[in-house]
Amino acid sequence: MTTLEHRARPREVSPAEQDYAAALERDATALRRIVDLIQRVDSGHPLLLEVAEGLDALSERLENPVETVTETVSNPGWRHDPVSGVENAIAPPLVLEFESDGTVRAELEFGLPYQGPNAFVHGGVSAMVLDHILSAAVPPGDTPIVTAQLTVRYHRPLPLFVPVTMVARETERDGRKRWATGELVIDGQVAVSAEGLFIEKQLKSAR
Amino acid sequence: MTTLEHRARPREVSPAEQDYAAALERDATALRRIVDLIQRVDSGHPLLLEVAEGLDALSERLENPVETVTETVSNPGWRHDPVSGVENAIAPPLVLEFESDGTVRAELEFGLPYQGPNAFVHGGVSAMVLDHILSAAVPPGDTPIVTAQLTVRYHRPLPLFVPVTMVARETERDGRKRWATGELVIDGQVAVSAEGLFIEKQLKSAR
Repeated sequence: MTTLEHRARPREVSPAEQDYAAALERDATALRRIVDLIQRVDSGHPLLLEVAEGLDALSERLENPVETVTETVSNPGWRHDPVSGVENAIAPPLVLEFESDGTVRAELEFGLPYQGPNAFVHGGVSAMVLDHILSAAVPPGDTPIVTAQLTVRYHRPLPLFVPVTMVARETERDGRKRWATGELVIDGQVAVSAEGLFIEKQLKSAR
Repeated sequence: MTTLEHRARPREVSPAEQDYAAALERDATALRRIVDLIQRVDSGHPLLLEVAEGLDALSERLENPVETVTETVSNPGWRHDPVSGVENAIAPPLVLEFESDGTVRAELEFGLPYQGPNAFVHGGVSAMVLDHILSAAVPPGDTPIVTAQLTVRYHRPLPLFVPVTMVARETERDGRKRWATGELVIDGQVAVSAEGLFIEKQLKSAR
C-alpha cells in the first residue's frame, strides 16, 4: 500500500522545517553508512562491541526529547517511507524521476544490506521497489492510491553493485482502478518485471 | 530470489565465530533502535546534528579494519539477509519457525520504518516479507531455490503496531519447480496473501 498524497498536494515548507529535514536526512545518511559497514566487517574485532555501546549512547540521548508516537510521524510521509524516504535509513533510497509522458524512472545500485543469495539482490527487495515505483506511476486524484494486486516475474538474477534502471508506467484506468507495469533493467535486459492493480481508497486508521 | 542453503547444510560454528556473531547482532540491534528513534523525532532539535556527527565518528572508526568486499560477506548469509537477518539493521528481523507439517510461521509487529500510508505498512514491505516466508516454506534440495514468480493480493490495510501472524506452506512440486502460498493475518483475518513459484537454480556470479 503506497499513498502518493504528496504528489497531489505539494505543501509549503518553512526554512525552519527545511533545516530540520536536512538534519534528519543527514542522520539517515550517517545511519546508512554504518548499516552498510556492519555488513562488511570480515573478522571478529573488539571495536564491534564499542560501536554497539556508542550507538546505544546516542539512542539514549535521542530518547529524551522524543515522544513515542504510535500512528504517524509529523514530517511529510514521503521523506519517511522505506523505499524512497531520504530520512529513513532502511530506504536505499530510491530517487524517483517523473517524465512528461507519465513514465517514472529511477537508477540505483543495491549494496550488501539488500543481499539475498551471495552477490544478488533479495527477491523480496525487487518486489518491494517494484510496488513502490508502479504505484508512483499511477497519478493520484483527491484520494490516495493503494495496491490491490501485484505480480512480479523474475527473469534473471539481479546482481548487487551494478546500476539498475527502474521504469514504470500506467497502462489503463477504469473508475477508481488503475493498472501499471514496470521493470528492473540491467545492461539493457529486463531482470524483473511487474504488473499491478491500484485502487483509489481512503484508508481509515484501525485504532 | 531467496536461497535457503543454510537449511540444507547446517554448519558448525566455532565459539570465536559465536562471539563475533553476537557482537554483530548487538550492533544491528543498536542500529535498529536508532533507526526507529530517528523516525519518531517530532520537532527540530540541535541534537539531530550531534547524532549525525556521532554516527560518522563511529563509521570512521569502523572503516579502518574493514576491507571493502563487492560480492559476498564472510558470515553465514542467513544472518545477513534484509528480512530475517539478525545482523542486518534493515531487517525487522523476521524470526521463522518451522513446524513439523512443513508450515513456516512468524509473528511480527511492524514499526515506523516500515510505514507507507500514515499508520499502515508499506505494500512493498508486505510483498518483501511474503517472498521471504514463501521461499522458506519450499524445502531446498542440493540446489538453492530462487523466486520465479510472486503474486501478492491486498485484501485489507495492514496497520503498524499490531501483531501480524505470517504463515506459508508448500502446495505442489514438479521437478525443479515448487509452489507455495502464504498469508499475513491480523485478528484472524487475512490482510495480504501471496502465491509463488520457486525454482531450484544454481546462481552464477555476474562478475
